[in-house]
Amino acid sequence: MTEELTPLGAALRDALDGRRWAWLRRQIRSELDVPRLLPDPGLSMEQHRAWVSDHLRDLAATPHPKYSFPERYGGSGDLGASAVSFEMLGHADLSLLIKCGVQWGLFGGAVYNLGTRAHHEEYLTRIVSGELPGCFAMTEVDHGSDVQHLETTATYDECSGEFVLHTPGAGARKTYIGGAACDARMAVVFAQLETRGEQHGVHALLVPVRDEQGAVLAGVEVADNGVKAGLNGVDNGTLAFDHVRVPRKGLLSHYGDVAADGTYSSPIENPDRRFFTMLGALVRGRISIGGAAGSATRTALSIAVRYGLQRRQFTRPADRAEVVLLDYLTHQRTLLPRVATSYALAFAQDRLVGRLHDVQSTEKRDQRLQRELETRAAGLKAVATWHATQTIQACREACGGAGYMAGSRLPTLRADTDVFTTFEGDNTVLLQLVAKGLLTHYRAMWGDLDTLGMVQFAARQFGGTAIERTAARGLVQRLVDAVPGRDDDLPLLDRGWHLRLFEDRERHLLDTLAQRMRAGAEPGADAWQVFNQAQDHVLHAARAHVDRVVLEAFVDGIAECPDPRAQEVLSRLCDLHVMANLEADKGWLLQHDRLSPGRAKAVTAQVNQLCEQLRPDALALVEGFGIPRAWLCSSLVPDP
Amino acid sequence: MTEELTPLGAALRDALDGRRWAWLRRQIRSELDVPRLLPDPGLSMEQHRAWVSDHLRDLAATPHPKYSFPERYGGSGDLGASAVSFEMLGHADLSLLIKCGVQWGLFGGAVYNLGTRAHHEEYLTRIVSGELPGCFAMTEVDHGSDVQHLETTATYDECSGEFVLHTPGAGARKTYIGGAACDARMAVVFAQLETRGEQHGVHALLVPVRDEQGAVLAGVEVADNGVKAGLNGVDNGTLAFDHVRVPRKGLLSHYGDVAADGTYSSPIENPDRRFFTMLGALVRGRISIGGAAGSATRTALSIAVRYGLQRRQFTRPADRAEVVLLDYLTHQRTLLPRVATSYALAFAQDRLVGRLHDVQSTEKRDQRLQRELETRAAGLKAVATWHATQTIQACREACGGAGYMAGSRLPTLRADTDVFTTFEGDNTVLLQLVAKGLLTHYRAMWGDLDTLGMVQFAARQFGGTAIERTAARGLVQRLVDAVPGRDDDLPLLDRGWHLRLFEDRERHLLDTLAQRMRAGAEPGADAWQVFNQAQDHVLHAARAHVDRVVLEAFVDGIAECPDPRAQEVLSRLCDLHVMANLEADKGWLLQHDRLSPGRAKAVTAQVNQLCEQLRPDALALVEGFGIPRAWLCSSLVPDP
Repeated sequence: MTEELTPLGAALRDALDGRRWAWLRRQIRSELDVPRLLPDPGLSMEQHRAWVSDHLRDLAATPHPKYSFPERYGGSGDLGASAVSFEMLGHADLSLLIKCGVQWGLFGGAVYNLGTRAHHEEYLTRIVSGELPGCFAMTEVDHGSDVQHLETTATYDECSGEFVLHTPGAGARKTYIGGAACDARMAVVFAQLETRGEQHGVHALLVPVRDEQGAVLAGVEVADNGVKAGLNGVDNGTLAFDHVRVPRKGLLSHYGDVAADGTYSSPIENPDRRFFTMLGALVRGRISIGGAAGSATRTALSIAVRYGLQRRQFTRPADRAEVVLLDYLTHQRTLLPRVATSYALAFAQDRLVGRLHDVQSTEKRDQRLQRELETRAAGLKAVATWHATQTIQACREACGGAGYMAGSRLPTLRADTDVFTTFEGDNTVLLQLVAKGLLTHYRAMWGDLDTLGMVQFAARQFGGTAIERTAARGLVQRLVDAVPGRDDDLPLLDRGWHLRLFEDRERHLLDTLAQRMRAGAEPGADAWQVFNQAQDHVLHAARAHVDRVVLEAFVDGIAECPDPRAQEVLSRLCDLHVMANLEADKGWLLQHDRLSPGRAKAVTAQVNQLCEQLRPDALALVEGFGIPRAWLCSSLVPDP
Repeated sequence: MTEELTPLGAALRDALDGRRWAWLRRQIRSELDVPRLLPDPGLSMEQHRAWVSDHLRDLAATPHPKYSFPERYGGSGDLGASAVSFEMLGHADLSLLIKCGVQWGLFGGAVYNLGTRAHHEEYLTRIVSGELPGCFAMTEVDHGSDVQHLETTATYDECSGEFVLHTPGAGARKTYIGGAACDARMAVVFAQLETRGEQHGVHALLVPVRDEQGAVLAGVEVADNGVKAGLNGVDNGTLAFDHVRVPRKGLLSHYGDVAADGTYSSPIENPDRRFFTMLGALVRGRISIGGAAGSATRTALSIAVRYGLQRRQFTRPADRAEVVLLDYLTHQRTLLPRVATSYALAFAQDRLVGRLHDVQSTEKRDQRLQRELETRAAGLKAVATWHATQTIQACREACGGAGYMAGSRLPTLRADTDVFTTFEGDNTVLLQLVAKGLLTHYRAMWGDLDTLGMVQFAARQFGGTAIERTAARGLVQRLVDAVPGRDDDLPLLDRGWHLRLFEDRERHLLDTLAQRMRAGAEPGADAWQVFNQAQDHVLHAARAHVDRVVLEAFVDGIAECPDPRAQEVLSRLCDLHVMANLEADKGWLLQHDRLSPGRAKAVTAQVNQLCEQLRPDALALVEGFGIPRAWLCSSLVPDP
């Protein structure tokens, strides 16, 4: 049975489906049985884990896990499709999704991206089929964000031709490792590599941790992380290694190899750069999390908006009729700007996936494009996951007590996505990386420069911050160039002005940040201290950068939309997204004379007015998210 | 074993303990066995419910439930102590706390406050002892916030001398009723009272729902609300009544009685006012939730700050040493302003409890003071519970993956408190009530005026908004009067300027709001529409009011602190609280010329500087919250 959408809802959905992987979104929409992939929220941790394991096996038989692997290993070699498939699976149970992400994204992805042909031949087919369940053991108790300094050691023993993998202390235990507590047979373990008494930095090794019967192997110690805020279907655990011997070929040696005699070799000489190149190869994980955050957010908004369209409370004195929640301005202001920003982020995510596909599908990767991709992935992951946390929370509150009941789905969405702001890179750390990358034109992004070097480099660049290009730049430039006169004279909804203002904000924040770095570059100055004292500025600059990139993606998405009515509504949504953004950042804009006081007041009035304008199309706006009503499975959205 | 605190921590704790119920806080701190009152986070819903029922019985034997009831029924007649005891119990399992709140606060409180001597004699002793478990059935499926329009009916049948209690449709089922799913033997049921064909508005009846063996009585239908986001130890359920007969004396008749012949009588003629007076008698629930939110927030901050003082990540280039998280400015900015605001709210809560005690302990209540109390309770409940939601979330994120593990306690604190923003009054609705009360000098606060009347009244008052007094007004006035000259010349940390600015912001927002109401008071205007279109303004005005009241309480608390070093640190905390508040509201302040651009930039610099200044005392600041280390029970805070 196909769902009847409003014509506007259908046109908006087509716009969000994008161009390149619309076929896949449509296919999954018609084929995926989401209600079957949502377990009872009352399951115990053990039951939920078992449920996930069962359904993971079922999914292994579908095309979902296969997109990112080459055909010779049972895959279909379409990176973009892989990210889109992950995003669409984000409408099912998120424990199941994360478990898929561990098996095929992190574990399989590490073997594929960090390993060599020999590793691929030996393992990939069984990884793709799910026969060989694995995990990805990077984070340690004492080192989560700063993985470069993790402490597990892999020391090469020339006599036996093996690595000795060892956990030197409690702080070096691998922790929060999805799959470690129960299911994983092998682990990709990140450790400090030492051969012939020389340190070569962090490398990844493929290490058996359980036998075919699931018994933990000798020298391996496993503990269970137990109950978590959410994602309780994922068996997170700790792993420790007591002088575990790993054959030499267990080293995933694409970026660094050890010969039988212990000679180390690598195509990348600088160890920092080597490490960050390895991490960069795994950028897909970060992009996938941003995508899943988007799906969960759009589900929550679909539920809350539909509920707000039915639920009535308090009477209007004029006619004593009870007022629909979404007729209250506060309710509109809670939900509609978040709907608008969710459109913006969906367009940005779609373009990011396109970049991922283009940059990483080529044999010889362009280093600058790869680094741009990494910055953008980091920035968008941070912004999209914070948006998810805040929006799902707002949806819960907007549904009142009903939204607190597990049957509404909002509690599960909220709890499961909560850790998205932390894993695959803590958001605050990610935004700092974004700012560092921008300040140094990516020179220092992944470790060529330490803080001092970064500060010195940035200080020299003062005044010359380059605005990084997006796919939409041609269009954006035309719109910006068409803006006449002074800001104060322009209509608030002039798109060219929006684009110019977002760009100007980013540039100003970066320029003044570079200027502050000068103090840190002075001889005798404490560069760390200078950078630390500017952290609020750093985060704001990174945020402004992401905001600009997202806006340009939205503008591009509008331009590509063939349906005139949908294009018109998308344009209003974009206005609302921009106005809400300016309203939230009003302090800075006024302080820096980017808005006059009168114009600032008008921004708030405009948010209210746009809410009122978009209100009649609220249902179509959430239909446009392309989530079939049957997928919502919420007590707040009764069957039609 | 007594815990060693830093001298500063001990002095801060004494300051927060206040004057009137410090004895009780100290007593509970030394006697309550919190670790025994925190269940395993992995319990199933059924196990958690059973655990709560067991521990509720234990608590019934302690003084905790007794404070709010008169001595003749086993109580001790100290309302303030009742609120403080509830706040302190907020360090134990929050399901247990809420179940206590249902039994003794809502159920017992309704019988006590809405019933007559006869009801007290018959029920209170058994309610206080826990022998008679009850529930409070107000919210209906279709009416949560707008309880005045709930649909359950209680029709008096003169022939039998009974009320016929009836649920006219699915939307009239009582829902989310704590205790209804399993434990309650009786329910206080709110219903539209009808006698002799006349409507008298909502009244409360005491209705048996289960027999001594726990079997549901005939005509009563019970359903289980099932799993929730949190508070799963509370058995929330729905209740429906099919022409259930309730004896005449079942009416809790303090505010409205029905004679045997069906004659209705009430000391309050206006039905709206009667209803809101009944609700007002139950204001303690709202105050208690604000208190519990404070306890949970301070626990979360205690955990996160202590973790931030131990946890290290990334090395400082100068000495290659790993940096403690709380040395990062971002981390300080995440936690320390929230610590400061938690102090502010704790002082405000303490003063609110004092008011509750004074206003409600007298036989003949002062109506104006009662209404002020209700506004303040509503406003502080909203602000404190949003602060809880946001702060506990910030703490979770600040603790990274470790904060996502149930063993850290942060997930449970987060999930359990989430509904605090909704129950005992949806926060958005509460802030609207606050603004309405202020706009009409409490005339319309509880129902004398509908929206049109309120708008008309407010419009007439333009320019004359009265600033409601707090206990600290004498001191505040002296500080404000001592402020010389123009704002721009004053030091940013001048307390008199802070007080004047907060008061000025409140007054301006209220005056301009009253001005906007004028349009709604014009003949032919749609008053509802005018009020609705000003909702963002309404919420901001209410918020500004609460902010002012909270600041005055903080200033009062500092003045009362006898320890000079603690007083100095409290003053820095108050500065940080104020600066963070101004930073968050910078847009409005700049827009309305309350801050110059230069001064606005200085506010941000000042937040950073105050964080740096307070950083060395971080441990003492959380020790000052007065939560014994042994009560934290968090994997992130190892035993000393």
